[in-house]
Amino acid sequence: MTHKNDRTLTSSGFYVSQEAPIHSDDPVATPSSPAPDILRCAYMELVVTDLAASRAFYVDVLGLYVTTEDSRSVYLRSTEEFIHHNLVLRQGNVAAVAAFSYRVRTPEDLDKAVAFYTELGCEVRREPGGFTRGIGDSVRVVDPLGFPYEFFHATTHVERLSWRYDLHTPGELVRLDHFNQVTPDVPRAVKFMQDLGFRVTEDIQDDEGTVYAAWMRRKPTVHDTAMTGGDGPRMHHVAFSTHEKHNILAICDKLGALRRSDCIERGPGRHGVSNAFYLYLRDPDGHRVEIYTQDYYTGDPDNPVVTWDVHDNQRRDWWGNPVVPSWYTEASLVLDLDGVPQPVVARTDDSEMEVTVGADGFSYTRRDDVDGGGVQGFKLGATL
Amino acid sequence: MTHKNDRTLTSSGFYVSQEAPIHSDDPVATPSSPAPDILRCAYMELVVTDLAASRAFYVDVLGLYVTTEDSRSVYLRSTEEFIHHNLVLRQGNVAAVAAFSYRVRTPEDLDKAVAFYTELGCEVRREPGGFTRGIGDSVRVVDPLGFPYEFFHATTHVERLSWRYDLHTPGELVRLDHFNQVTPDVPRAVKFMQDLGFRVTEDIQDDEGTVYAAWMRRKPTVHDTAMTGGDGPRMHHVAFSTHEKHNILAICDKLGALRRSDCIERGPGRHGVSNAFYLYLRDPDGHRVEIYTQDYYTGDPDNPVVTWDVHDNQRRDWWGNPVVPSWYTEASLVLDLDGVPQPVVARTDDSEMEVTVGADGFSYTRRDDVDGGGVQGFKLGATL
Amino acid sequence: MTHKNDRTLTSSGFYVSQEAPIHSDDPVATPSSPAPDILRCAYMELVVTDLAASRAFYVDVLGLYVTTEDSRSVYLRSTEEFIHHNLVLRQGNVAAVAAFSYRVRTPEDLDKAVAFYTELGCEVRREPGGFTRGIGDSVRVVDPLGFPYEFFHATTHVERLSWRYDLHTPGELVRLDHFNQVTPDVPRAVKFMQDLGFRVTEDIQDDEGTVYAAWMRRKPTVHDTAMTGGDGPRMHHVAFSTHEKHNILAICDKLGALRRSDCIERGPGRHGVSNAFYLYLRDPDGHRVEIYTQDYYTGDPDNPVVTWDVHDNQRRDWWGNPVVPSWYTEASLVLDLDGVPQPVVARTDDSEMEVTVGADGFSYTRRDDVDGGGVQGFKLGATL
Amino acid sequence: MTHKNDRTLTSSGFYVSQEAPIHSDDPVATPSSPAPDILRCAYMELVVTDLAASRAFYVDVLGLYVTTEDSRSVYLRSTEEFIHHNLVLRQGNVAAVAAFSYRVRTPEDLDKAVAFYTELGCEVRREPGGFTRGIGDSVRVVDPLGFPYEFFHATTHVERLSWRYDLHTPGELVRLDHFNQVTPDVPRAVKFMQDLGFRVTEDIQDDEGTVYAAWMRRKPTVHDTAMTGGDGPRMHHVAFSTHEKHNILAICDKLGALRRSDCIERGPGRHGVSNAFYLYLRDPDGHRVEIYTQDYYTGDPDNPVVTWDVHDNQRRDWWGNPVVPSWYTEASLVLDLDGVPQPVVARTDDSEMEVTVGADGFSYTRRDDVDGGGVQGFKLGATL
Repeated sequence: MTHKNDRTLTSSGFYVSQEAPIHSDDPVATPSSPAPDILRCAYMELVVTDLAASRAFYVDVLGLYVTTEDSRSVYLRSTEEFIHHNLVLRQGNVAAVAAFSYRVRTPEDLDKAVAFYTELGCEVRREPGGFTRGIGDSVRVVDPLGFPYEFFHATTHVERLSWRYDLHTPGELVRLDHFNQVTPDVPRAVKFMQDLGFRVTEDIQDDEGTVYAAWMRRKPTVHDTAMTGGDGPRMHHVAFSTHEKHNILAICDKLGALRRSDCIERGPGRHGVSNAFYLYLRDPDGHRVEIYTQDYYTGDPDNPVVTWDVHDNQRRDWWGNPVVPSWYTEASLVLDLDGVPQPVVARTDDSEMEVTVGADGFSYTRRDDVDGGGVQGFKLGATL
Repeated sequence: MTHKNDRTLTSSGFYVSQEAPIHSDDPVATPSSPAPDILRCAYMELVVTDLAASRAFYVDVLGLYVTTEDSRSVYLRSTEEFIHHNLVLRQGNVAAVAAFSYRVRTPEDLDKAVAFYTELGCEVRREPGGFTRGIGDSVRVVDPLGFPYEFFHATTHVERLSWRYDLHTPGELVRLDHFNQVTPDVPRAVKFMQDLGFRVTEDIQDDEGTVYAAWMRRKPTVHDTAMTGGDGPRMHHVAFSTHEKHNILAICDKLGALRRSDCIERGPGRHGVSNAFYLYLRDPDGHRVEIYTQDYYTGDPDNPVVTWDVHDNQRRDWWGNPVVPSWYTEASLVLDLDGVPQPVVARTDDSEMEVTVGADGFSYTRRDDVDGGGVQGFKLGATL
Repeated sequence: MTHKNDRTLTSSGFYVSQEAPIHSDDPVATPSSPAPDILRCAYMELVVTDLAASRAFYVDVLGLYVTTEDSRSVYLRSTEEFIHHNLVLRQGNVAAVAAFSYRVRTPEDLDKAVAFYTELGCEVRREPGGFTRGIGDSVRVVDPLGFPYEFFHATTHVERLSWRYDLHTPGELVRLDHFNQVTPDVPRAVKFMQDLGFRVTEDIQDDEGTVYAAWMRRKPTVHDTAMTGGDGPRMHHVAFSTHEKHNILAICDKLGALRRSDCIERGPGRHGVSNAFYLYLRDPDGHRVEIYTQDYYTGDPDNPVVTWDVHDNQRRDWWGNPVVPSWYTEASLVLDLDGVPQPVVARTDDSEMEVTVGADGFSYTRRDDVDGGGVQGFKLGATL
Repeated sequence: MTHKNDRTLTSSGFYVSQEAPIHSDDPVATPSSPAPDILRCAYMELVVTDLAASRAFYVDVLGLYVTTEDSRSVYLRSTEEFIHHNLVLRQGNVAAVAAFSYRVRTPEDLDKAVAFYTELGCEVRREPGGFTRGIGDSVRVVDPLGFPYEFFHATTHVERLSWRYDLHTPGELVRLDHFNQVTPDVPRAVKFMQDLGFRVTEDIQDDEGTVYAAWMRRKPTVHDTAMTGGDGPRMHHVAFSTHEKHNILAICDKLGALRRSDCIERGPGRHGVSNAFYLYLRDPDGHRVEIYTQDYYTGDPDNPVVTWDVHDNQRRDWWGNPVVPSWYTEASLVLDLDGVPQPVVARTDDSEMEVTVGADGFSYTRRDDVDGGGVQGFKLGATL
């Protein structure tokens, strides 16, 4: 990680630097086996406790397309997807994530995945027929951070619906954009993901070097996944993108019309990190879904890494609107390969919420405001 | 006011009825003199304590057009305005509103205004040359509610800039839309405004008949002004409209870029009342400015009056996002005709904030939710 | 009409002036009876030759809401409408317009309508139960220009669907905005409409004073109807408005997806006249429908009249995109009160198409371009 | 190329297949040297004949940012660019393209570029200090198709302006998206570009196998460049992208306000190919610039290739709006490495314009319409 003195302050108030090795006090060993060549985040398998309620949320409210379904599972995709699905809803007893699934470039990358994780001592399973419908030969692992990851290449092709404007809704979700994971030790997680071939695009730090969150990508957007500091392993959210900002507003309007506005957790707003326009929803099980649009291209190898000061009140919302506490504290369980929830380990590093909100925290709008660096608390908090 | 039993519940959760006489325990007498024929809210004269800072806010940030200016005043208009100005900034010692100014249909309507207010015992002054530049023969009064109102017809015409897209900004403000006034006794205020020829379009009530706010119009939009229950007379906000929702988002983005996000007080969001998309800002003196778009046509005489339940958590934000307390409690002083701030009288009716937020209040998303009508507190509050 | 020397040239290239009497060589006499007080254009009754095909177009493609229907008629409304309907589709043998219907302020205005048209010698019929469902006491006339006009006040109220975002489509039509009529003698028509209480907002003229078209309003938008010079009486189009421009683009995208793009006749584009964003479609019978958004407020009595030079190539499309010839030449028949098509009288004044397009016409982008006033023909034409 | 019988017809009317080898009757030999690893199209060097006029167009009208400039050159970038420039305007005597410049992954890829083109017998020049300011070690070649290509890796980093909303305009151009080249023999060009490592995403063919155009990518969008069949080598256009569709409409509106609408050549509209929203402008020298937004992700190795029937009237405009003839026939000269215009070779394959427009051509909206496959000519043509 670039030392703060070697970063460049931009005219927008954040810093840029070139990606550098991350120091971890407790690193995962770097395997000698090469990492598989990951194309992109491809789908999430979600366990839901009321399949009908979840289907209503993702299909009737959010408008995802049903590729296929049966009595226990629904396979969904976004408008422009041509692989079989971006989201699997599976009926179960405990709401949790069964897999963060990534597509790899070639069938041979599955062999690399097996070797890579086996060398790390992880549990690895391979299913030539795939773990879910429409997906072929697949590898599932519990990674060193405790997350259930899947890798696959083979998939049934389905029709891209980008030109099917007769089917589109005002809040049309066009792509799966990224995952977001909660983990107690962010530098350890980032270092491991770098070994897996991910590139860091942005992070949030403080002057003491504590890392609160980091964003990492394979495809050339701001992220395929992010690591958010907190008790984990847990799943923070899965994100779909829209073409325009009004599509996101339309989802809010529709939720109001359905008298389901209480599933809006945070936003809509503009992120500082990623510069994207966003909205966070909670599904019937409390799984968090982000709707997201308009980040930037990151595909050049020297793409500048953006570092935000944790006390910058515009880092998580460019308009300074408050982050609700639940957004910091609540997240979904993740499962091991037998479907048992992974134990959650407490974060011991500083909490982003605590250092920025409430009696012990502070945030600033302008770094150089008088009286020592900004107001205590956050905008809404100041008036409560 | 239509009794609650005679209103019709809509499929959206609010009620509609036909406008009916408002009962006031302390009515202003209805003058025998006919009211002037008011066209629309036309401009506000704002006293500001740092003219350069206010000019920067309204011109450099919000993009209003300067019709003319001098060392003590700046005359501003919105894109499609053809009268001289929609906002006057005047340097002074106390931040306050000097006039809520309305345009009347004919020069003769000024005589009617004089007679109407004189009969009510109000202080009335007439200035044939106008109280502000670019405006001709004008009448100013302190109305029975304590507000400084102006009426005029004659004005210098200036060029409409609707076609001057080379001058437009991403957050272009195209029209002055409405005023909003804070007054302790809303039914008394509404009844007086009906006598002045205003029509009620929406209101917020509770089952006991307490009226928390009401919206009234002359031009066929949801309002030219609204009466918000609170300590008054004070000015709650002045509102400009944009063409599209993204224009409002662009203002937020720009404020972030300028590191002035702390002037965003509330929003952006979708109102329940008016169905408009909104944003509330605070100018350098704390005067509140709303940016607003896409309400509905109200010009038919039998336009349905919309009544919202004060406990409906979507009434003020259709997405259920919380109203910050400052929005309920803070407002601008108003001046008498000598420039002295009007004394503020406390509201004795129930407070909307108190009955909906915090320990004593409750709001619901779905009226018929179990356990007696919804959760205590509001969405953000529930997680704090 | 203001003489061209007394108009003011704006920085946008058109002229403004105050509305003035229109000279007509063949005026309709001004009745001594007062005109009814018209609120707004309210609905059109369209005769269609294949009701199922028309219903599919207006309901399935354009998303208008069905208030009610039977085997021979469909009653449709836009999102924010609270009167019974804005469009009636009625099965018949000849595609035509049966009525341009306007709402009046009071029931008594119907008596005024009867007296006004009777004095003019027009055929007048009154139907206390209404000519269409959901409408009460109504008066229908064939006006001196040959058009079937209706006036009514009483109507069944229906629910405004503005808050029902769960029903909205990407191309949501929120209001009926205006009608447009084809008539051979525009000054004669304008003078008659002024007598009926309409106000002129914009027109297209040449330096010789020929008037090619004029826009007139009752509600404070650019128009409730317009008079387009051509063989008439015929109906040029009926227009619905959307909230935003992307809604109009969504209609085009959907028509492409349905492989019905050939019903797009002209646009989308930006009008010079009205400054609105527009699209023209043709329904299954060839009736023209405009989709329209974002004109400007015109409700002040001294609202400046905008006059465009017929040779200004940006008058009909601000981007200079060509007007297709069919838009100038094709229009719908109108019916008399017995349902018989009105005979069409040829225009004898200059044709706007001929003076601006092709071998005999010319248009300019910049008035003062060299070689005497611009290029021959129009943009597309120049490359054909 | 996949035989038409092996393609899959989609519900949108075009075909999909997997990318297959392209047959060329006159192939460029495949080098044994490996191709350089190209990241993306990076900038175009344009020779302009009036630098001040071109600067006004790209900076004052289109809002590109000036990284640096001198008396003979202006270096411009789009909002989110962090390399030195995306466009160089250089004063010269003949309007032409001096370089299509691509960024490669590593400095070593320049050695590969030298070897690759040298083996093909092309003229190759290397300039360690770069051919333009802000760019380091660079290789320029005249490729076998006659185009001046540049490859570089080293570049000065500049600040990304994505968060600088205070600088943004309504028509903000956020990225360089792609180039488009005119070449007589499309299959020959496609086969060569495949050898260079490009992947085909879409093409236009007829039933006889004539290829009229093809789109190819390195970064995972629809293209970094396209090959358009016509007399060549020439440059068809350079394209910048916006975030939303309204940004493109704002450019049109601004051009109207500046009375420069005659630089709008085609659009705005929706492409069939790429599904993007588009606009084509002509700069003061006639160089064509596309403004483009919202195509789809193409980064998976098995991304389906889309093939359009040349007679499908929605292939180039999804709304069926006509392609103006100049768009087919006019293009910019390209220069050799000494700055001399390359000779233009005539296309001998069928012309897309001739087979689709006018007396000899036909296009259909619905493939299976009666009377043998659609109407003669195109929509506008049918009414001329």
